[in-house]
Amino acid sequence: MIRILACGKVRDSWLRSGIEEYARRIRPYEKLEIEEVADEKAPETNSDAENRQVIAAEGERLLKKIRPQDYVILLDLAGKPLDSVGLAEYLDDLKTHGRSQIDFVIGGSLGVSPDLIRRADFRWKLSDNTFPHQLCRLLVLEQIYRACRIQSHEPYHK
Amino acid sequence: MIRILACGKVRDSWLRSGIEEYARRIRPYEKLEIEEVADEKAPETNSDAENRQVIAAEGERLLKKIRPQDYVILLDLAGKPLDSVGLAEYLDDLKTHGRSQIDFVIGGSLGVSPDLIRRADFRWKLSDNTFPHQLCRLLVLEQIYRACRIQSHEPYHK
Repeated sequence: MIRILACGKVRDSWLRSGIEEYARRIRPYEKLEIEEVADEKAPETNSDAENRQVIAAEGERLLKKIRPQDYVILLDLAGKPLDSVGLAEYLDDLKTHGRSQIDFVIGGSLGVSPDLIRRADFRWKLSDNTFPHQLCRLLVLEQIYRACRIQSHEPYHK
Repeated sequence: MIRILACGKVRDSWLRSGIEEYARRIRPYEKLEIEEVADEKAPETNSDAENRQVIAAEGERLLKKIRPQDYVILLDLAGKPLDSVGLAEYLDDLKTHGRSQIDFVIGGSLGVSPDLIRRADFRWKLSDNTFPHQLCRLLVLEQIYRACRIQSHEPYHK
């Protein structure tokens, strides 16, 4: 079972539709849950210390959702890249080794907390470019769908 | 002026909305055009030779739109990464050096032609992960918008 753990509601309706579309495509291949925790307000006037509090509070909410047996893939700009075939093989390997619950965790608008980084089993850098965290949900789902197709030896249009 | 040169019409309506949304956000900062050339049918039953013909035909249509004075940034999985601040500085530099027209060129579903690669002034690897070429349009626009905000010293939510 794959779970997406993320912060806050997706505001843009087109993005919600895209996320739903990829979730719908994944479900014939894989049990999928998308779980949201509340996000914190992070006004531009925040001090660095206040921003750290935002990151810590959001991180704690995400951590509470993670069970000890979960395998945690954390989206992290400071992580390692993993190409699409690599991700497919990685997910396949995890299943082979009996890891039945995989959490893809996406931090809030200010990034990921040190506690989340410590809990992560793998830190995945999706791109050198920063993308909005809500758009990352779509990108991660697209990559999971692509991995499902690769695992099933089915064609996938680029 | 920034131009997006891409193959084929965007099929998903949510993706069209997302692309329009980012185009709308960019336009107060930068003149923007999105130009599409026709894509070729590329059935799974195609031979490698037929696929090369598809890539060549789409590549030629894109090349015809490019003028000699254009600066061409080609989206290419075999290119180099450029992070968001790097892209902002790069675009700024190009303007300083009088390059007034920048084309972001996105190939079709099978990739980019050797002729396009030869014409490219910079080959940009957006991610180690493969994304659908139509979704790349959204990602490139998001990065251009982000670059505009960075250049204007305006905050940008992640």
